[in-house]
Amino acid sequence: MERYSRQIFYYETDKMAIVHNANYLRIFEEARLFFMEQIGIPYTKIEDAGILIPQVEAYVRYHQTLKYGDELCVDVKLTEFNGARMSYAYEIHRGGDDLLIAEGHTSHCFIDETSRIPLNLRKRMPEAYEILKANIE
Amino acid sequence: MERYSRQIFYYETDKMAIVHNANYLRIFEEARLFFMEQIGIPYTKIEDAGILIPQVEAYVRYHQTLKYGDELCVDVKLTEFNGARMSYAYEIHRGGDDLLIAEGHTSHCFIDETSRIPLNLRKRMPEAYEILKANIE
Amino acid sequence: MERYSRQIFYYETDKMAIVHNANYLRIFEEARLFFMEQIGIPYTKIEDAGILIPQVEAYVRYHQTLKYGDELCVDVKLTEFNGARMSYAYEIHRGGDDLLIAEGHTSHCFIDETSRIPLNLRKRMPEAYEILKANIE
Amino acid sequence: MERYSRQIFYYETDKMAIVHNANYLRIFEEARLFFMEQIGIPYTKIEDAGILIPQVEAYVRYHQTLKYGDELCVDVKLTEFNGARMSYAYEIHRGGDDLLIAEGHTSHCFIDETSRIPLNLRKRMPEAYEILKANIE
Repeated sequence: MERYSRQIFYYETDKMAIVHNANYLRIFEEARLFFMEQIGIPYTKIEDAGILIPQVEAYVRYHQTLKYGDELCVDVKLTEFNGARMSYAYEIHRGGDDLLIAEGHTSHCFIDETSRIPLNLRKRMPEAYEILKANIE
Repeated sequence: MERYSRQIFYYETDKMAIVHNANYLRIFEEARLFFMEQIGIPYTKIEDAGILIPQVEAYVRYHQTLKYGDELCVDVKLTEFNGARMSYAYEIHRGGDDLLIAEGHTSHCFIDETSRIPLNLRKRMPEAYEILKANIE
Repeated sequence: MERYSRQIFYYETDKMAIVHNANYLRIFEEARLFFMEQIGIPYTKIEDAGILIPQVEAYVRYHQTLKYGDELCVDVKLTEFNGARMSYAYEIHRGGDDLLIAEGHTSHCFIDETSRIPLNLRKRMPEAYEILKANIE
Repeated sequence: MERYSRQIFYYETDKMAIVHNANYLRIFEEARLFFMEQIGIPYTKIEDAGILIPQVEAYVRYHQTLKYGDELCVDVKLTEFNGARMSYAYEIHRGGDDLLIAEGHTSHCFIDETSRIPLNLRKRMPEAYEILKANIE
């Protein structure tokens, strides 16, 4: 799987001159949606099918800090998926020296856009179900 | 009209240790929606009627900076409204000494949530139209 | 301890029409700094003493969603503090019906602003140390 | 000059399902700093010399909207620069069909990081001054 990477944006820093802690959940999202696109399930396709994937849990362990001028690199792994729920693990490294900056995980469920009721992807999008199943690590 | 005010949030600062410039458009939005609520047209009511109010123009002139620990106070004025379009003027002051921090304006149109086609509030929400008309300064 | 509460800002929503998941870490921060101010240790005082308090860990469990128009209320508790590290627990409720929206915790360390080396608040700010000690729940 | 482009992030959308208006100032910043890097003056170099470049003015005209799944492309031009102040003009297009999404401009001054007093780049960073001068369009 290709690593997700990009430069740090200036507006992501706070007055400690480091990337603000809340941005790590945004970075996880960027990397997760990039992963889904890589395996052939762009999130737009999911939403076009009337399905939303809200976050139900998130954890971040901050080891080092990121500064403006740094590049971030994220390794994402789909760790659990059963059609009703999926979990991802993330490692954020700094480009260049590959220093471990942070790690964490998030869990998500699938709901119907209109009713907001939980659903199982196996019934609703069998093809996407199979692809996700095949990409659990 | 009551002034809109609140404390600066830490995450609004950037590595210059001042409130990041993009947040001023967010602050304008907070103040504008507060104004609409004050005059009896909460934005939720507009959206419940299937109407959206996208921004079509924005201008900010930054005079001074805001730091964490400061309070912001915003004076909002509805400067133009004809049912199809409305404009607001803003002044952001620092609490305490009332120093002028920034000023600006935004313009907005009204569109149908489903069709995304521009609409006139006079036909679609006559009551809201009258209230807004009466509050132009 | 007074509850921290405010209205949801429009810009906090995402295309699912709910408050975006990353904002919960920002809300935790708002509530935590409000708590510190309430007990007499405004964060500005800490920073004026050349001390920063980076986040080392964060966890969020999302139970329900928040929409524009909702009020959020946060209960914060200082759960651990030993001078070198402190942890907080949070519960976010919806105003009105008090529905539990999310809960979580964060941990923080203290570092010197210039050297970025960890420090113990007991030596560096004994007064703040005593106050925090006295407010562990 | 190379165009600045990237995918829209999910968290940039709001409940109208479009990129929130305040993000355009962030996008301008991304494109501007990319431009500076392209011409050989990365912003980190400026800051390493103890110089900050706060924004003094910003204007955005929103023509169309951006959605999640879209790619944004920004054309940036340095329109004015005299050592004390510089201005940029921006056009944001949608990738693929090149639809004009928004245009705008920003102005900036140079200040000393410590004293926060305005300075002239011609004296303080003559090399950067010459490069910027040569890139006015």
